[in-house]
Amino acid sequence: MMKFLLLFVYIGLGSGMSIVNPGPKFPPTKGHVWPKPQEETKENKYFLFNPSHFKVKVLGQNCTILVNAINRYSFIIKNKSGLHHRRNHERRRRRIGRDENYLGGIDELQVDLTEPCEEYPHFEMDESYKLNVSSTSTLRSASVWGIIRGLETFSQLFYLSNDRNQLKLQELRVNATKITDFPQYSHRGLLLDTSRHYISMSNILKMLDAMSYNKLNVFHWHIVDDQSFPYQSERFPELSEQGAYDSSMVYTKEDIQRVVEYARDRGIRVIPEFDVPGHTRSWGNAFPNVLTECYRQDKVVGLGPMNPTKNATYKLLRDLFQEVQTWFPDKYFHIGGDEVELDCWRSNPELREYMNSHNLSVTQLHGLFMENAIPLLANDSEVVVWQEVFDEKVPLSKETIIHVWKGSWISEMVTILTAGHRLIFSSTWYLDALGSNWPDYYWADPRQMVFDVTFNSTLANGIVGGEACMWGEMVDDRNVMGRVWPRASAVAERLWSANTLGRRMRSIFDTIPLEVYQRIEEHTCRMIRRGIDAQPPSGPGFCIP
Amino acid sequence: MMKFLLLFVYIGLGSGMSIVNPGPKFPPTKGHVWPKPQEETKENKYFLFNPSHFKVKVLGQNCTILVNAINRYSFIIKNKSGLHHRRNHERRRRRIGRDENYLGGIDELQVDLTEPCEEYPHFEMDESYKLNVSSTSTLRSASVWGIIRGLETFSQLFYLSNDRNQLKLQELRVNATKITDFPQYSHRGLLLDTSRHYISMSNILKMLDAMSYNKLNVFHWHIVDDQSFPYQSERFPELSEQGAYDSSMVYTKEDIQRVVEYARDRGIRVIPEFDVPGHTRSWGNAFPNVLTECYRQDKVVGLGPMNPTKNATYKLLRDLFQEVQTWFPDKYFHIGGDEVELDCWRSNPELREYMNSHNLSVTQLHGLFMENAIPLLANDSEVVVWQEVFDEKVPLSKETIIHVWKGSWISEMVTILTAGHRLIFSSTWYLDALGSNWPDYYWADPRQMVFDVTFNSTLANGIVGGEACMWGEMVDDRNVMGRVWPRASAVAERLWSANTLGRRMRSIFDTIPLEVYQRIEEHTCRMIRRGIDAQPPSGPGFCIP
Repeated sequence: MMKFLLLFVYIGLGSGMSIVNPGPKFPPTKGHVWPKPQEETKENKYFLFNPSHFKVKVLGQNCTILVNAINRYSFIIKNKSGLHHRRNHERRRRRIGRDENYLGGIDELQVDLTEPCEEYPHFEMDESYKLNVSSTSTLRSASVWGIIRGLETFSQLFYLSNDRNQLKLQELRVNATKITDFPQYSHRGLLLDTSRHYISMSNILKMLDAMSYNKLNVFHWHIVDDQSFPYQSERFPELSEQGAYDSSMVYTKEDIQRVVEYARDRGIRVIPEFDVPGHTRSWGNAFPNVLTECYRQDKVVGLGPMNPTKNATYKLLRDLFQEVQTWFPDKYFHIGGDEVELDCWRSNPELREYMNSHNLSVTQLHGLFMENAIPLLANDSEVVVWQEVFDEKVPLSKETIIHVWKGSWISEMVTILTAGHRLIFSSTWYLDALGSNWPDYYWADPRQMVFDVTFNSTLANGIVGGEACMWGEMVDDRNVMGRVWPRASAVAERLWSANTLGRRMRSIFDTIPLEVYQRIEEHTCRMIRRGIDAQPPSGPGFCIP
Repeated sequence: MMKFLLLFVYIGLGSGMSIVNPGPKFPPTKGHVWPKPQEETKENKYFLFNPSHFKVKVLGQNCTILVNAINRYSFIIKNKSGLHHRRNHERRRRRIGRDENYLGGIDELQVDLTEPCEEYPHFEMDESYKLNVSSTSTLRSASVWGIIRGLETFSQLFYLSNDRNQLKLQELRVNATKITDFPQYSHRGLLLDTSRHYISMSNILKMLDAMSYNKLNVFHWHIVDDQSFPYQSERFPELSEQGAYDSSMVYTKEDIQRVVEYARDRGIRVIPEFDVPGHTRSWGNAFPNVLTECYRQDKVVGLGPMNPTKNATYKLLRDLFQEVQTWFPDKYFHIGGDEVELDCWRSNPELREYMNSHNLSVTQLHGLFMENAIPLLANDSEVVVWQEVFDEKVPLSKETIIHVWKGSWISEMVTILTAGHRLIFSSTWYLDALGSNWPDYYWADPRQMVFDVTFNSTLANGIVGGEACMWGEMVDDRNVMGRVWPRASAVAERLWSANTLGRRMRSIFDTIPLEVYQRIEEHTCRMIRRGIDAQPPSGPGFCIP
């Protein structure tokens, strides 16, 4: 597996000997947005939410994706903003004294989509939007994806008045606000590994919900690996019949289509990874012949990476990739290429003979494999590979995107960018470092790191984004939501908002502003209200359900 | 809070460059017991479980606790052993070929309790039992608590035949087995902190279930602390009215009685902790007068520990303790005494004046408080204090039990034992070290550590047990089960089985036998089947639900 041991130990936020206050360690903000918008002006004056009258009015273009998004967020605002006692609320609204900041009720949001909807989210999609909460509230974007991001922001502006223990007097408010917003990085992803432990469809869909609450836009589905093969192929059913943990632990074609549709509705791309030629042991239950027999002292001791010299290997990959690319409409395909057990290739007499006769080193053999495998993908594919493929000097087209995950990432990124590749960053965002908490994931801005050593922003802009990686060794269906959220929220804010907050963080030792601690508390409770079993972000506290 | 930063970083069990097998990293054992019994002889020959005929027959003494335990374990064996298709099972039983190890069906367990039941579990209770699974299976103990432990063991011996993907042919077996078993330590606890985050009753009861599956026998309820006061007092309702996070986040008298009863049925004692004079900030919402005003440069900056010079303090404690000890029948009471902010006492002009006039140091003031507070408990109480109270040389009766939680624990334990106190150990068992996994908790045997430096087993035997501590800063109702289990299972096995396995582990660097990795896999899946959301112990794998 791609394990990178972050040695940042969780620094206790315990009470120490200083004066402790009762209640939450970081009292949550009220109606603050995560990830932070690029430009935001918020007044003290507020509107009251009127659940029985509120509606969203479509002014411009319309389409099913937009209708679905409006329904979703209308439901969320009405039912998931923490206001339990709607009837009480309504009745008491008239009785509560109105202060000078009260601007009246908010009954409508006008949604103005100025260009026709696109069918699928894609790498270059426009996610920018303008939101104005005032007596006539409007949300405007040239793209349905921008409208979706804006609706998320709008839904996050609502907050309950008054403090705890006074629930009966609470009312839902939204301050007069102007927001101009867009993401700093195009590729904002979450990798989920469903091979080391099987993750249920129900949790995958919840994961997509949570991604949309954090404006992440790429679901990188590391669907199969050494340990199990849950992808249920129609062309090769034996792969999962013999490679899945259990017959109940598979993803069918219908499951995959459901994930793609669900993600599309939320402006999320789904990029599958079939990690070859290493990380393929589970393929060998059904197709041992495409793997390499590893030798120790002239004896076969097990099966290793795919055999790069056999036609059968490429034939299987060609037919399987063809099916996979029909089921996953995104042009991006992650073909892996990491952690190939070159020692196994070296140990195999036939491969040694092959390397000798073709005058190839073992890394050149890896190169040969990738050169053969990549063209098996559809012509218009955009290919992503783990950094080893670049490091081992496999000839790659400049279009290939390199996924950086190892240490020494700054020099690695500079080398990759200088060679003319775009890249995706993950090195400091491995969520399987169980002792790391969200502040450990919050500081790193990959473009900033490259700019700091090169002073070349054009070069830095070759970093198209990054991904938080939830490798599955230590997470299963029961704890995966809490392991990912809110830790991945830190990555989501960095990728959306980058360093525009006027507080450039350059290392893990920079102090995160108190406001961020308070805002992630609100955001975590918000996710919990919406059904995401997020874990406590930073210390003692509570969420009203 | 009592945070002790274990610096053991989770050592990745990733695949590395060695040959990877598909499937679970550690294939689970079948019908092996956790914690390991003291003596066990297991044959290859097996009996088939017969769900429609199986019954437990009581030969000796009987009582409600015994009836409840038999009902509970009959249900678990029949319904939580992983056998889904009972009808299929029944039908196919006759058709499966019988091998030479087949001994027939198991229809009955005879339970022979040779002495009358006790009413409540207690420190000196007898938990030993003898279990014989043969053509006439018997479980014998002089104590109902021993029978409960033996029923747990019996329920763990059952396992499904055959491998995965052949569910329809599986049958429930139990091998012919002889077990003589007893715990090495009397006090085997789990501390749960319900102040930093509120934990629901439903999860507290599940926690007690899980404790019984691990033969833990002390639920140390760290019920209130600085952050919130969920204990709903009848005598002082304002404490939780003003000190709980929310009016819904309290434990009523009925809740507490339910916990005590539920625990009693499982042979678990419930020891409440009211941690004084520090860790009391939430008391001050209702009773600011019993806390000390902390000063900085002649200005009050907040409230600190209890004020040890005021009668009001002791009056409140006396009346509250009286109520608490009525609701919690166990003689043990944990009075805390850790992490007192002596700086606050030093800063307060009145207390400075008091110390001057009485010629007291600030630690002597802490001593004065403890000397006044401890006698407020019932006469026959057994008092537990955190180690600071001993370290600060507060005069304590020899009966007082010291709870060791800090670093340098070996010399600390030797000092405490030499001074004639009994002690409870927790230093290496802090479950709030999020990066630590069960192997980090598995190695430490406190008696072994003391014996290794003193060669004095009488001294070492003054260690009466230990507790895994789940401090609540980073856990709430959503993730607490997975944080505790199976990590606390490592502590449970150490405390029950100690070093009798013929493999004395002396440090974290000792290799844990493969058998333990496999056995905790089975145990984790067993807990999951019984409704405990345990997390994956050691790497890739799966449980059939």
